[in-house]
Amino acid sequence: MTYNLILLRHGESEWNQKNLFTGWVDVTLTDKGRAEGKRAGELLREKDLIPDVVYTSRLKRAILTANIALEAADLSWLDVHRSWRLNERHYGALQGKNKKEIRDEFGEEQFMTWRRSFDTPPPALADSSEFSQAGEARYANLGEALPRTECLADVIDRLLPYWYDTLVPELTVGKTVLVAAHGNSLRALVKHLDGISDADITGLNIPTGIPLHYELTEDFTPVTPGGTYLDAEAAAAAIGQVANQGR
Amino acid sequence: MTYNLILLRHGESEWNQKNLFTGWVDVTLTDKGRAEGKRAGELLREKDLIPDVVYTSRLKRAILTANIALEAADLSWLDVHRSWRLNERHYGALQGKNKKEIRDEFGEEQFMTWRRSFDTPPPALADSSEFSQAGEARYANLGEALPRTECLADVIDRLLPYWYDTLVPELTVGKTVLVAAHGNSLRALVKHLDGISDADITGLNIPTGIPLHYELTEDFTPVTPGGTYLDAEAAAAAIGQVANQGR
Repeated sequence: MTYNLILLRHGESEWNQKNLFTGWVDVTLTDKGRAEGKRAGELLREKDLIPDVVYTSRLKRAILTANIALEAADLSWLDVHRSWRLNERHYGALQGKNKKEIRDEFGEEQFMTWRRSFDTPPPALADSSEFSQAGEARYANLGEALPRTECLADVIDRLLPYWYDTLVPELTVGKTVLVAAHGNSLRALVKHLDGISDADITGLNIPTGIPLHYELTEDFTPVTPGGTYLDAEAAAAAIGQVANQGR
Repeated sequence: MTYNLILLRHGESEWNQKNLFTGWVDVTLTDKGRAEGKRAGELLREKDLIPDVVYTSRLKRAILTANIALEAADLSWLDVHRSWRLNERHYGALQGKNKKEIRDEFGEEQFMTWRRSFDTPPPALADSSEFSQAGEARYANLGEALPRTECLADVIDRLLPYWYDTLVPELTVGKTVLVAAHGNSLRALVKHLDGISDADITGLNIPTGIPLHYELTEDFTPVTPGGTYLDAEAAAAAIGQVANQGR
């Protein structure tokens, strides 16, 4: 008995395209991002890897990617559940800022620390910022626990309760679980699954729109470390491009 | 304290356009149907009638209408729940048949009996039919309870448990509930809410893609009998057209 988990990073968003730090800002997909979602659904069908249940973040770029993929796979009828615990990393005061400008202003080292440091969050975002989520109905249940900035360690801390309490129970009853989420929430999960060190996770990029299949043993060890992309060639090409963001 | 319920009949499907009996056959929306979904979402925003939670059938024409409306209203992040109990009436052996041909072959009286009789279902659909849902994963939990045909009385019987056990508890905690469903499942609910007789429900048509708002008292009586369409003029025009189907 093995378990089947499928990770899907959302397709290109309007702010990916503009090279802005996005985080919890709820930007929509580009046409290219929608096409990526469609291709993801087609890949699920081609590989006959059919989810039984779907989980998404509370951000529309992941939700729409899932909607489009499910429609393409003729699986719109599946149950779907959403949680802020699958949201992208909150980028603090960097939200809405241009990646290249931040890099030019603060230098490569600070830029990479904010972007990829495991345990150093960027400065907190003020609640008065136009890019703040403070006061939004969708996060009302969080109260003062609403993040104002996060490092990857923070993302792991808020993601793992959802993994253990919500996703694992679905896997253990034999359901194939599709998780539609974000670069950093998925990196947090992959770090946990593959036992990647705090240092090594910095170098890991997950391409957009290509389903990543983890077959897991009964103790939740990946049968294939790193999982298997349903389009390995496209994944390899995309991983190189992600690493070049901000340049 | 009153409760707020919003009913939304899916936009035009490919089989609405072809004038076929659809029932549980999972056909998709036309471009016109997608545009209706978008307009529905815009109407929710214009009227500032913002749902807190969404319920759909298991059929993609209702699910996609909800997805599109929610995207247009910038509410894709809402929790959504699906149930076969909100599905369209199962049209039995009529599923996949042309409405005009059925009318020409069997005559106006039999046609209207099958289409609108309260308690006479059409002949059952054989499990071997290409239009049967027997064996589909999405209805596996129903086992032998899967309908093979239904009259409106049958729809009421399977809808009301969902109303009492799932929708009413959401309303009573003060949530505005959006239900995206079908002509007959919504007629069943409206019959219950407005206390319409078995005879009079025959004449009631619900137009596609126009949100219908019910404000309900604490004993679930409509404040305005029949509810309020968010675009009253378009609703009045559409109700006349629905009545002419099959002609």
